[in-house]
Amino acid sequence: MKKEKIKIVTIGGGSSYTPELIEGFIKRKDELPIKEIWLVDIEDGKEKLEIVGAMAQRMVKAAGLDWKVNLTLDRREALKDADFVSTQFRVGLLDARIKDERIPLSHGIIGQETNGAGGMFKAFRTIPVILDIIDDMRELCPNAWLVNFTNPSGMVTEAAIKYGGWDRTVGLCNVPINCIEDDAKMLGVPSSELFFKFAGLNHFHWHRVWDKEGNEKTAEVIEKLYNPLLAEEKKDAGVANIKDIKFNYEQIKDLGILPCPYHRYYYITDDMLMEELESYSKGETRAEVVKRTEAELFELYKDPKLDYKPEQLTKRGGTHYSDAACELIASIYNDKRTTMVVSTKNNGALEDLPYDSIVEVSSTITSHGPEPINFGKFDPAPRGMVQIMKGMEETTISAAVTGNYNKALHAFTINPLVPSGQIAKNLLDEMLLAHKKHLPQFAERIEKLEKNK
Amino acid sequence: MKKEKIKIVTIGGGSSYTPELIEGFIKRKDELPIKEIWLVDIEDGKEKLEIVGAMAQRMVKAAGLDWKVNLTLDRREALKDADFVSTQFRVGLLDARIKDERIPLSHGIIGQETNGAGGMFKAFRTIPVILDIIDDMRELCPNAWLVNFTNPSGMVTEAAIKYGGWDRTVGLCNVPINCIEDDAKMLGVPSSELFFKFAGLNHFHWHRVWDKEGNEKTAEVIEKLYNPLLAEEKKDAGVANIKDIKFNYEQIKDLGILPCPYHRYYYITDDMLMEELESYSKGETRAEVVKRTEAELFELYKDPKLDYKPEQLTKRGGTHYSDAACELIASIYNDKRTTMVVSTKNNGALEDLPYDSIVEVSSTITSHGPEPINFGKFDPAPRGMVQIMKGMEETTISAAVTGNYNKALHAFTINPLVPSGQIAKNLLDEMLLAHKKHLPQFAERIEKLEKNK
Amino acid sequence: MKKEKIKIVTIGGGSSYTPELIEGFIKRKDELPIKEIWLVDIEDGKEKLEIVGAMAQRMVKAAGLDWKVNLTLDRREALKDADFVSTQFRVGLLDARIKDERIPLSHGIIGQETNGAGGMFKAFRTIPVILDIIDDMRELCPNAWLVNFTNPSGMVTEAAIKYGGWDRTVGLCNVPINCIEDDAKMLGVPSSELFFKFAGLNHFHWHRVWDKEGNEKTAEVIEKLYNPLLAEEKKDAGVANIKDIKFNYEQIKDLGILPCPYHRYYYITDDMLMEELESYSKGETRAEVVKRTEAELFELYKDPKLDYKPEQLTKRGGTHYSDAACELIASIYNDKRTTMVVSTKNNGALEDLPYDSIVEVSSTITSHGPEPINFGKFDPAPRGMVQIMKGMEETTISAAVTGNYNKALHAFTINPLVPSGQIAKNLLDEMLLAHKKHLPQFAERIEKLEKNK
Amino acid sequence: MKKEKIKIVTIGGGSSYTPELIEGFIKRKDELPIKEIWLVDIEDGKEKLEIVGAMAQRMVKAAGLDWKVNLTLDRREALKDADFVSTQFRVGLLDARIKDERIPLSHGIIGQETNGAGGMFKAFRTIPVILDIIDDMRELCPNAWLVNFTNPSGMVTEAAIKYGGWDRTVGLCNVPINCIEDDAKMLGVPSSELFFKFAGLNHFHWHRVWDKEGNEKTAEVIEKLYNPLLAEEKKDAGVANIKDIKFNYEQIKDLGILPCPYHRYYYITDDMLMEELESYSKGETRAEVVKRTEAELFELYKDPKLDYKPEQLTKRGGTHYSDAACELIASIYNDKRTTMVVSTKNNGALEDLPYDSIVEVSSTITSHGPEPINFGKFDPAPRGMVQIMKGMEETTISAAVTGNYNKALHAFTINPLVPSGQIAKNLLDEMLLAHKKHLPQFAERIEKLEKNK
Repeated sequence: MKKEKIKIVTIGGGSSYTPELIEGFIKRKDELPIKEIWLVDIEDGKEKLEIVGAMAQRMVKAAGLDWKVNLTLDRREALKDADFVSTQFRVGLLDARIKDERIPLSHGIIGQETNGAGGMFKAFRTIPVILDIIDDMRELCPNAWLVNFTNPSGMVTEAAIKYGGWDRTVGLCNVPINCIEDDAKMLGVPSSELFFKFAGLNHFHWHRVWDKEGNEKTAEVIEKLYNPLLAEEKKDAGVANIKDIKFNYEQIKDLGILPCPYHRYYYITDDMLMEELESYSKGETRAEVVKRTEAELFELYKDPKLDYKPEQLTKRGGTHYSDAACELIASIYNDKRTTMVVSTKNNGALEDLPYDSIVEVSSTITSHGPEPINFGKFDPAPRGMVQIMKGMEETTISAAVTGNYNKALHAFTINPLVPSGQIAKNLLDEMLLAHKKHLPQFAERIEKLEKNK
Repeated sequence: MKKEKIKIVTIGGGSSYTPELIEGFIKRKDELPIKEIWLVDIEDGKEKLEIVGAMAQRMVKAAGLDWKVNLTLDRREALKDADFVSTQFRVGLLDARIKDERIPLSHGIIGQETNGAGGMFKAFRTIPVILDIIDDMRELCPNAWLVNFTNPSGMVTEAAIKYGGWDRTVGLCNVPINCIEDDAKMLGVPSSELFFKFAGLNHFHWHRVWDKEGNEKTAEVIEKLYNPLLAEEKKDAGVANIKDIKFNYEQIKDLGILPCPYHRYYYITDDMLMEELESYSKGETRAEVVKRTEAELFELYKDPKLDYKPEQLTKRGGTHYSDAACELIASIYNDKRTTMVVSTKNNGALEDLPYDSIVEVSSTITSHGPEPINFGKFDPAPRGMVQIMKGMEETTISAAVTGNYNKALHAFTINPLVPSGQIAKNLLDEMLLAHKKHLPQFAERIEKLEKNK
Repeated sequence: MKKEKIKIVTIGGGSSYTPELIEGFIKRKDELPIKEIWLVDIEDGKEKLEIVGAMAQRMVKAAGLDWKVNLTLDRREALKDADFVSTQFRVGLLDARIKDERIPLSHGIIGQETNGAGGMFKAFRTIPVILDIIDDMRELCPNAWLVNFTNPSGMVTEAAIKYGGWDRTVGLCNVPINCIEDDAKMLGVPSSELFFKFAGLNHFHWHRVWDKEGNEKTAEVIEKLYNPLLAEEKKDAGVANIKDIKFNYEQIKDLGILPCPYHRYYYITDDMLMEELESYSKGETRAEVVKRTEAELFELYKDPKLDYKPEQLTKRGGTHYSDAACELIASIYNDKRTTMVVSTKNNGALEDLPYDSIVEVSSTITSHGPEPINFGKFDPAPRGMVQIMKGMEETTISAAVTGNYNKALHAFTINPLVPSGQIAKNLLDEMLLAHKKHLPQFAERIEKLEKNK
Repeated sequence: MKKEKIKIVTIGGGSSYTPELIEGFIKRKDELPIKEIWLVDIEDGKEKLEIVGAMAQRMVKAAGLDWKVNLTLDRREALKDADFVSTQFRVGLLDARIKDERIPLSHGIIGQETNGAGGMFKAFRTIPVILDIIDDMRELCPNAWLVNFTNPSGMVTEAAIKYGGWDRTVGLCNVPINCIEDDAKMLGVPSSELFFKFAGLNHFHWHRVWDKEGNEKTAEVIEKLYNPLLAEEKKDAGVANIKDIKFNYEQIKDLGILPCPYHRYYYITDDMLMEELESYSKGETRAEVVKRTEAELFELYKDPKLDYKPEQLTKRGGTHYSDAACELIASIYNDKRTTMVVSTKNNGALEDLPYDSIVEVSSTITSHGPEPINFGKFDPAPRGMVQIMKGMEETTISAAVTGNYNKALHAFTINPLVPSGQIAKNLLDEMLLAHKKHLPQFAERIEKLEKNK
């Protein structure tokens, strides 16, 4: 029976994104009969939680709503009888992300906080925590939906479903929405008039697009976005997290599918590395920039008169992320049958990956969860790429769950962004030591490393 | 570029269903800017074409529309520059169907005009004609959509796509709509509030259903439709073509999926056979009943004052068939993204059948055709059943295209409705002789049979 | 470490086949360093066990061997430290088989003791026992191989591996060896000069054959075995269990693969039924004939001078069965890498069946078990047939393990040899009652049936 | 009908390997009734052909055989009525290989003449020629077997079968035999007492090994080969082509499968690169070393008294290559059913790669070709790796056949040995120019590149 009033819990509620999330709920006040919103954080995030939580309360009040916005460090209290649990936490906070990006770059390797060495360590830190959260949910809110937008979103979702057994998990990302809006801009039509089919993995998907007349426009969008000869200055909106380096037009011209912005890391690795090394040398890696932006944002948030999402947040990157989460929650609650691109069980929608994998795929969002639109098969080149990424993901998740060092090393080895060999091993060891505090599953190995130093 | 005015061609335009089709178009006059409708038939159907064609013209006029309704025996003239071609023809007319049903029954075998021996012969007669039509279309209207509702709809669609190479073919059937309305009635909610996932083959699909709150209602519908202990007298609306014999509740209770009405032929073959043998003895096989109904309908259609679809047509069976075709055309033309259950390319949507098969599956209808919702896998029992039916379909189509007698005999052998052995062979030979006129591909064999008689 | 002396246990040791088994071991005395053979049976089989056991002891003695042949009703004592456990038991003895065959025929339905209604009941009776045996083995001989030739051999093997978790199970059947010898006779060359590829299920496999020069001879063997126009009187050796009714040549001519003798039940069901009904009316069903033959055999076995396998046993049917078991044991023990057709894990060897299914397939027998030769895919017709049979097998096994009546009824429904509907249900109920004593898992249902009688 | 006398043609007969091939045939003189051996080469290889051809003639004579050894530049004359055609040619000779290795290294990239950038260019040069040879074979020797050991052996074999339609192609490599002998040495038993299962791609396969007692020894071999703590100095025999750098033990310890020596390039890329850059700087890349060795070999071959394979050839690398070819030919001719690891059609033997792919897999060699032993699935990590390599292979072959520059660039992009981005494009362009003479399919693009220089 559909509940009349709903309770929403956000784990990592002290995040700078929270205002966007609150704004998203307010925008949907007519379709989401919210009773309570619980913002949960940990001791280390208490100050931020209080700042952004107070602002959230002001926003709700300014909207004239009677929702109760609770701030707590007690996760279990928050989870009790929750209907939707969204996760946007960051184990080790932004300092951990700085390590994820800077340590690899110090070895001449792209860190990449989702699919690269950095993202793998984020998985190592996050997966044990998500499994803990699920253990609590099993006891306290056994019917709740888990809306994950903690990165690496695909791997965390796979861990939640395969290892946590929580089928009601949906993984989210803002990249597909950005692609959609971008393509629409290129074609000069509203995105609602286009039909999109996405498939792949989180930060590693491709898509095709058709217009209202039934013509496939994929090749045209490739031309408009990437052909350097086209006079008019057009560019893909991209994602704030990624330097706006151009794809090599000739390499993707005949692909027949549109890559996602993160594919730059794989299609033009060297060029991305150059750029990142420059940022590294200036102390301007993405993590460092974000940390500064965040500090500024929290300064803004402290303003007791601010009761709306400030423009600066949009520049933070990750736009649409929280909005996507709100839309997903509204779609599930109201059986809206919206089409969204989410991380969910494959079940054969993408033939090239294992049946029981988590994939990121265009889906109809129903009250019983996402129903993927069937995608079929890729051509050999993207097929091979997405297959090795899935192999890397599965090996990484397995290492995250078991703390098996050899598996972690092997996951590094097969990751296309990490060169294999002695450097990779050195990098792995250095990162294990650097993230020691948040990697209890690797404790034994880390101790050994420390002894041998 | 979307055409401003469209031309629709209906092959088998002299059918008694035509008024429903016209009514369907009139209902959608605001979304379908029709310029011309061409009703095509063959010499043998000329009289019917003239009667029903005149009535179609009266209907259009009564609706105050300026559409031109053309009647012709010249298929090529009609196809020139067509946008949509719908096919509802019957090679050999109803007399052929009477043979399809009565000859098998004379051997104690269910004929079943879609998937049984009768349906296989209908495929043998129809597939060469559909391939001819496609040859004309390739030349005369290379961008047109082929909307097939000629039975056996799945096999004809597979032949059109695999052997005819006409990718823009969509197969239709009215059975899924009937199931949907039926389930909704059982659950006491409008069908629009439910979510359905169908998969399988034409007249051989199963489905699952969820309510607006996200609860799967499949088991509840099974209970309400089939549990004999439920006091209230409920029954599945069924399909007029099928005797309303009850499924065996205990056999389907634990299936986890809802069968379609045609599954009666497979789940309770003996009971259906008893019933059909009785009809046979009274000269009341479905084909004979339909023939009489049709004669009555045409008497009605002759009335120059009749300018609307008469109530009696609804009783003819096949309700919703033409309406489905109109909805499909409107959905493609307007990119409506309606969910419909159609026969289309599998591409992995139903994991248990070959990737390149035609399956009947819930799909989003876009301007570039149907996009199936992924279904996944069946449990072992329905999996095995749908797999042997696909094997039978492929073998039948191959025999229809090549005229290979041994393949035809083997297709009979593996069809679950046809007992194998000497009787099957006798039946095959008798039907080949009976349908001789419409089976040019089997000419050589038929001649041999005639000699040996 | 390879054991120097081995202990072999035969469950159902009182079987009339035991002398063939003993003969098989004696033939292989140089490659099998047997220390003990244990013949195990149950109380009801005690007399037979004593008769045939004494004879086995005489055979071993006559061969001048020092093997200890133990007779026991204590299965656990026998299993202790066993190296190979072969199973050839029959729950309910031949009287149960008589019911398996006669009850279906009394309803006009083929019983078929392996894949038909009879075989399904044999699975219902046998699977709980095999799972019990495995429980004992887990405790008493955790490294032993289980060589199953209890029918239905494929289903029993699948239950042992999937439900019992006993990976070291190999299923055996004598049908493939008979096919091999038969083909060789047709081609006039020793079977060792031919190359065979079998795939499918137990009593439901097809094969292809090549000669020493690399030419495929499958079509030629089909001609020689089944073309009625070929002057010389040739016939397939068949299997003593099956009436030697001819396949319909035209139906299998273009198959491209050779059917097995049991395919007659599916390819020419009606003809087989006629034949079986005649035997039924005369009290000469296969089971009844076997029962009489067995009585005669045991009379022979009582002869204290008989110390070799009598000729009459060969006529019993099942020739090569025990020899195959001995050869399998010798191949495993000695890593002989013989090619045998066995029931083992699919793992993709037959693409058309689930990866984790048990299939019957040509395999190289190594010391770590069978390694299947890859088969690939079947054409649509055999593909569909083998797929529905696997669906039936899985549903039957699931019913056997759980005692779920609805699943049992559904397994009946999809079995191609059992017509569906009321008759099937009546048959199921009658058989449940008839076999009541050996179907504890169905106890609840049977009680209900008894009440409603 | 098996031919009484056979004609063998070797394309690239002027190779320094020819003496090993001849020796291989001589060793098998009792099972191979050779009538003629034709050594074919092109104008540029004439001198070598004459030198090594004369030596081949001396070897045959010394063995007291009456085989006719013909030397020719006329390929068509040679192919007429051939029974076996082996290919060991090198388009562009060793100078092309030097470019394949040195140009990438000049960009800091491993060239790798089989799977790296170098191997891809070897494929670009070789595939058009192999397709030409097949065109000739279709006309002149339509029943001949094509035994390919021209590298990249897997891609050339896939092109021959998929694009050339020559089903009777078998690809060979000496790496598996070396692995087998290596493992046997580690385990201290003859290789014939072990059972091996290989699967993967050419120079990219893994394997498992069992002993005569049925115990899997894979983990033990990993330990003995790669655990640096094991006191005794053991090393894998490796392959002369590859620097003997140690695998990282911790990375492969838990793999459960044994990598092949070429996996070093993927598992420890950086370490291999260091080593290769050093060789590069000294003018001692493998290609340069081989070129010098070959010059020495040909000096030896000129000696009119030399009529046996000199010891020095063994050191050339590629040991066992020619012997494998001879064994394959003998196995096909005599239906020997030897187990060999060859490149052949997958057909599901390795579940992780497309059904119609060419894979390198343990196979039984029969007179109708290789019959793969079923392998099943890999774990996620090797699965992903082999899948991206197959994607790279398919894309490379497609570029080789069509001359599509964008596909070539994309194949570079996804190759794990080639970093992606501007450097990759520069490398591709430089190699296209360098190999201009042998890349007619890319002529248009090369012309454009030359203009823009």
